[in-house]
Amino acid sequence: MKPLKVGIIGLGRIGKIHLDNLLKIPTVEVVTAVNPSEAGQSYAKALGVPNTTSDADELFDNTEIDAVIISSSTDTHAQYAVRGAAAGKAIFCEKPLDLSLETVKGTLEKVNAAGVPLMVAFNQRFDQNFSAIRSAVVSGQIGELHTLHIISRDPGPPPIAYIKTSGGLFKDMTIHDFDMARFIVGSEVAEVFAKGHNLVDPAIGEAGDIDTGIVTLTFENNATAVIENSRKAIYGYDQRLEVFGSKGMMKCENPLKTVNQFYNESGGHTDRNLDFFIDRYEKAYQLEIEAFTSALANNRPMPVTGEDGLQALLIAEAANRSLAESRPVKLKEIQL
Amino acid sequence: MKPLKVGIIGLGRIGKIHLDNLLKIPTVEVVTAVNPSEAGQSYAKALGVPNTTSDADELFDNTEIDAVIISSSTDTHAQYAVRGAAAGKAIFCEKPLDLSLETVKGTLEKVNAAGVPLMVAFNQRFDQNFSAIRSAVVSGQIGELHTLHIISRDPGPPPIAYIKTSGGLFKDMTIHDFDMARFIVGSEVAEVFAKGHNLVDPAIGEAGDIDTGIVTLTFENNATAVIENSRKAIYGYDQRLEVFGSKGMMKCENPLKTVNQFYNESGGHTDRNLDFFIDRYEKAYQLEIEAFTSALANNRPMPVTGEDGLQALLIAEAANRSLAESRPVKLKEIQL
Amino acid sequence: MKPLKVGIIGLGRIGKIHLDNLLKIPTVEVVTAVNPSEAGQSYAKALGVPNTTSDADELFDNTEIDAVIISSSTDTHAQYAVRGAAAGKAIFCEKPLDLSLETVKGTLEKVNAAGVPLMVAFNQRFDQNFSAIRSAVVSGQIGELHTLHIISRDPGPPPIAYIKTSGGLFKDMTIHDFDMARFIVGSEVAEVFAKGHNLVDPAIGEAGDIDTGIVTLTFENNATAVIENSRKAIYGYDQRLEVFGSKGMMKCENPLKTVNQFYNESGGHTDRNLDFFIDRYEKAYQLEIEAFTSALANNRPMPVTGEDGLQALLIAEAANRSLAESRPVKLKEIQL
Amino acid sequence: MKPLKVGIIGLGRIGKIHLDNLLKIPTVEVVTAVNPSEAGQSYAKALGVPNTTSDADELFDNTEIDAVIISSSTDTHAQYAVRGAAAGKAIFCEKPLDLSLETVKGTLEKVNAAGVPLMVAFNQRFDQNFSAIRSAVVSGQIGELHTLHIISRDPGPPPIAYIKTSGGLFKDMTIHDFDMARFIVGSEVAEVFAKGHNLVDPAIGEAGDIDTGIVTLTFENNATAVIENSRKAIYGYDQRLEVFGSKGMMKCENPLKTVNQFYNESGGHTDRNLDFFIDRYEKAYQLEIEAFTSALANNRPMPVTGEDGLQALLIAEAANRSLAESRPVKLKEIQL
Repeated sequence: MKPLKVGIIGLGRIGKIHLDNLLKIPTVEVVTAVNPSEAGQSYAKALGVPNTTSDADELFDNTEIDAVIISSSTDTHAQYAVRGAAAGKAIFCEKPLDLSLETVKGTLEKVNAAGVPLMVAFNQRFDQNFSAIRSAVVSGQIGELHTLHIISRDPGPPPIAYIKTSGGLFKDMTIHDFDMARFIVGSEVAEVFAKGHNLVDPAIGEAGDIDTGIVTLTFENNATAVIENSRKAIYGYDQRLEVFGSKGMMKCENPLKTVNQFYNESGGHTDRNLDFFIDRYEKAYQLEIEAFTSALANNRPMPVTGEDGLQALLIAEAANRSLAESRPVKLKEIQL
Repeated sequence: MKPLKVGIIGLGRIGKIHLDNLLKIPTVEVVTAVNPSEAGQSYAKALGVPNTTSDADELFDNTEIDAVIISSSTDTHAQYAVRGAAAGKAIFCEKPLDLSLETVKGTLEKVNAAGVPLMVAFNQRFDQNFSAIRSAVVSGQIGELHTLHIISRDPGPPPIAYIKTSGGLFKDMTIHDFDMARFIVGSEVAEVFAKGHNLVDPAIGEAGDIDTGIVTLTFENNATAVIENSRKAIYGYDQRLEVFGSKGMMKCENPLKTVNQFYNESGGHTDRNLDFFIDRYEKAYQLEIEAFTSALANNRPMPVTGEDGLQALLIAEAANRSLAESRPVKLKEIQL
Repeated sequence: MKPLKVGIIGLGRIGKIHLDNLLKIPTVEVVTAVNPSEAGQSYAKALGVPNTTSDADELFDNTEIDAVIISSSTDTHAQYAVRGAAAGKAIFCEKPLDLSLETVKGTLEKVNAAGVPLMVAFNQRFDQNFSAIRSAVVSGQIGELHTLHIISRDPGPPPIAYIKTSGGLFKDMTIHDFDMARFIVGSEVAEVFAKGHNLVDPAIGEAGDIDTGIVTLTFENNATAVIENSRKAIYGYDQRLEVFGSKGMMKCENPLKTVNQFYNESGGHTDRNLDFFIDRYEKAYQLEIEAFTSALANNRPMPVTGEDGLQALLIAEAANRSLAESRPVKLKEIQL
Repeated sequence: MKPLKVGIIGLGRIGKIHLDNLLKIPTVEVVTAVNPSEAGQSYAKALGVPNTTSDADELFDNTEIDAVIISSSTDTHAQYAVRGAAAGKAIFCEKPLDLSLETVKGTLEKVNAAGVPLMVAFNQRFDQNFSAIRSAVVSGQIGELHTLHIISRDPGPPPIAYIKTSGGLFKDMTIHDFDMARFIVGSEVAEVFAKGHNLVDPAIGEAGDIDTGIVTLTFENNATAVIENSRKAIYGYDQRLEVFGSKGMMKCENPLKTVNQFYNESGGHTDRNLDFFIDRYEKAYQLEIEAFTSALANNRPMPVTGEDGLQALLIAEAANRSLAESRPVKLKEIQL
């Protein structure tokens, strides 16, 4: 079998994870790694990537390259996706495609016109706990789905500078949960009601953002999802789901580093929650990139599409409007 | 010490529990038990209650009786409370005082004017798991409280005939959770947003009610509570809380009949959830009535007041309006 | 139905529990309470027991009394059981009947000759978790039983003075586990191998006893049980079982005061284990005495017999000999 | 830094795992892979190993190779270790070095004389749950260690043909637990008492082996360990530890595929236990081989030594003698 030839753009924190995981797949060959700075390039060079460069053209102009992994900064995603499409390459792009709804729509139009496959990287879908819950819904084990509850809390807020350009809590953090909700429920969101507060750090409020969000999503199939977000859980990364339906309930606790339990004078104790999403989703990142390359190799549809990216962004826009106007917002109000 | 002399009105399911628990308190003497039918009277007689009757006057006219337990049908609560107040007796009344806000207000005015103590029986406050969560909030263990999540699901819906006179999901079932939310958060509700669906049984919808509710409460102290209700959890009674704050998170799983775990070919297994609220709250009912009699004996304030009953009803009214008008409703809109 | 008339001897810690529980059974009438000191008598008087006395004859000579509860100090159990038998009364006797095998045998002969029912009070059999495990074994859910594991640890050792007269760890503490092992396995012990150490407190060793025991029981049906004992678990009362067989495994964790879980900077936390066996077995004590009175009322066999008490003592003797002689000891060596 | 050049002998189930894991370590270069059959060789070839052969000489004669991984069949371990030592190579050898005590001793003498490092592959030591328990013991969190309990059950017995050459349950299966007990307790075993039964499959008994073992180890530091083994747990791979000491207790449940919990009419449910030790110890195998190569690279002592392998085998011999002679056996009886 001919190996899949891949180029990667952006070797920051996430890009390195993707590169590591690509190198573990025997049927994949990483040909070119693009990064503006030396640091990222030498990381790739040490791992044996033959061509490392700061010039993205070397990737897009190389007709041998089948697919491009875009893990550069968010503001460059759309342009690289458009160039990849123009060059006829399959595209794996970190979320979000862009913070602007218009840009996302324009990008998707060009990608679709070019007829190249595009996968938007919602890594959490590939977590084995969450995907087993989705499977339980699909298989009918839950029965008719009535409610979904998502808890998603980070160990601490990002730097204020990041928050200012992040697009806000709903586009930056909750967007994962919006996608997860659509993934689990398997229906489209009809209405969004959002509450938000600035409780974690006043500086976040001064930067114009909230750090605590509670969003109620009503789906077209009458299921309801509630999402609870916080920028700071003092006990570490907290990411849980619960689905409830006519035939049962399934929930997922946080996986910990060990399954050990300690008992002493003050009671029973378990490990602290994991502190980084990279630890929490180590396996999910691996399964995600494998899903992309395997779909390409087998001519199967992308497991997460550009449309999925667009829908999550639409919901985030609706959440922003709901928060601003203190009322439930129909998704079709946004789609205009 | 002189024993507390008590009379009880209504020996249905809950009344019998109260009578059983009263008889276990050495400092309490149950003097009179009132019930319209023979069945309830003979139950009390068999347990040694000296005076059993269908005539409530025998209770209210007996000047030796210090306190009255009202566990008759909901539509009689208010009138008995008023008669108890007029007779100068301390009052323990099952929730709700009445389904009508106006009647509740009028009753409380009369009770307050009479200067007698009144306790409204929100039994769940006395559950040892929930009260330990409240203690953790009060002691500062949770830090500043950001969010509260309540799951409250019954094993199955009541008869349709009952639903028709129940006042609807929010006044009949969620009212417990409204009270619990106020109890845990320790602040007043400012705004209510309610979603509701008819997913469990079409007959409930035909009776004009919902069977699935998701309510978001915004408190004056900026905490947010989400309540998830269902009339039917196929796995049994499901009643859980989770509080999240700046210093930690505390949650409560469902206590089961045994703490046993069984492992076989198909995996690990634990007991089915309890099937009846009476099993789930057996100990809470006992602690509740003890709290009433002990507060009386020691001249301490009632642990749950008429005002608590009124506030829960106000929130239920706001939830109903929110559902009807598809918008968040301020509690002060109701207080007019 | 005529009520069961009961007398009780001994109102120490356990006697009071039995009295409280007897008074909650509507069909039981406690007629006489015997205790050497005033304190115990006034406890009974306050609860309404008509005859309280220091003279046991008032109980045994009262022909109206159907049954006697013996909860006095261990060295008096046998003589009271014999007097009860002579007086034709049903007997409920705290474990052990006596520390001497010979005395136990002699007592049982007299009781059997008199033809009165005798129940030995191994309260742990009535714990709902343990009895559910026994039910799983009986019902075939576990399949052929291969191994049983019992952990039994106290929060702290009793006073040295008590230890000196206790008969030693195996007769005082492990005896509960010997009975539990027979109860769960449903077969007789064939061989005992015991290891013991003095690790908790040197004073226990100086008193001639051990505080840490590991006993391996081989049953006639080829099942094996391992019992781990310690006089001191710093984290509270620790009492767990695990059965393993051809069709599955069932185990029982410690029930705690609440089912709450708390998460903070240092990890996840649950309640401290219970500190007293009285809290741990509150419900078991109630079910135990109900089992006795209900067996009497319905002419059913005693749920725990004198033979059960004898067998547990035989196993303890074998354990002592195994420890002394550093070898496995056949139970039939003891039965000579 | 010069890469570590490695050769591997034996590409069966375990050998493939080691090869995969070696290839993920950037500082390691796998030069030669030896396997008698084509299948194993082509596996290595596909992964890019330059030299694949059936002739072990090509490995031992290659002076560039620093270390040899021995994962061939057990009866060849000793000879390859001796040849590796003679060739001056560091040795990583699958357990056991040999089933014969004499052979192991002779092999270790030659290895020690050659002065090459030798690691015996007790992979379970590198499980993150178990090693965290060892850390808790070392750090003093458990206090003085009183008892250790090990449960080790396989999902099903190996083929009878394998059992006949396995050396028996204690040398084949329990040997892992003997090593684990030494690892956790950090003291040497003084006495062994073993019980064994044939309960799983009569064919195992006919082959002269047991399938159910209960071993009590008494350590020189007075700690006691109990090991429970079964060749067949119908619910999957079951591997748990519990340590108990003066300052607390730590135990480890089985890690499962997901942390999901499902609730339906019949109760609560979790995943089936893992079915293969390879899944259970996936991460441990990786950490194990990394520990070997990292110790070599940094001139640190081997994390598991030949002496560890010898001690585990001595304990297994003692267990066999204890079972045969129905008595506790001192380890020094074996060391003659």
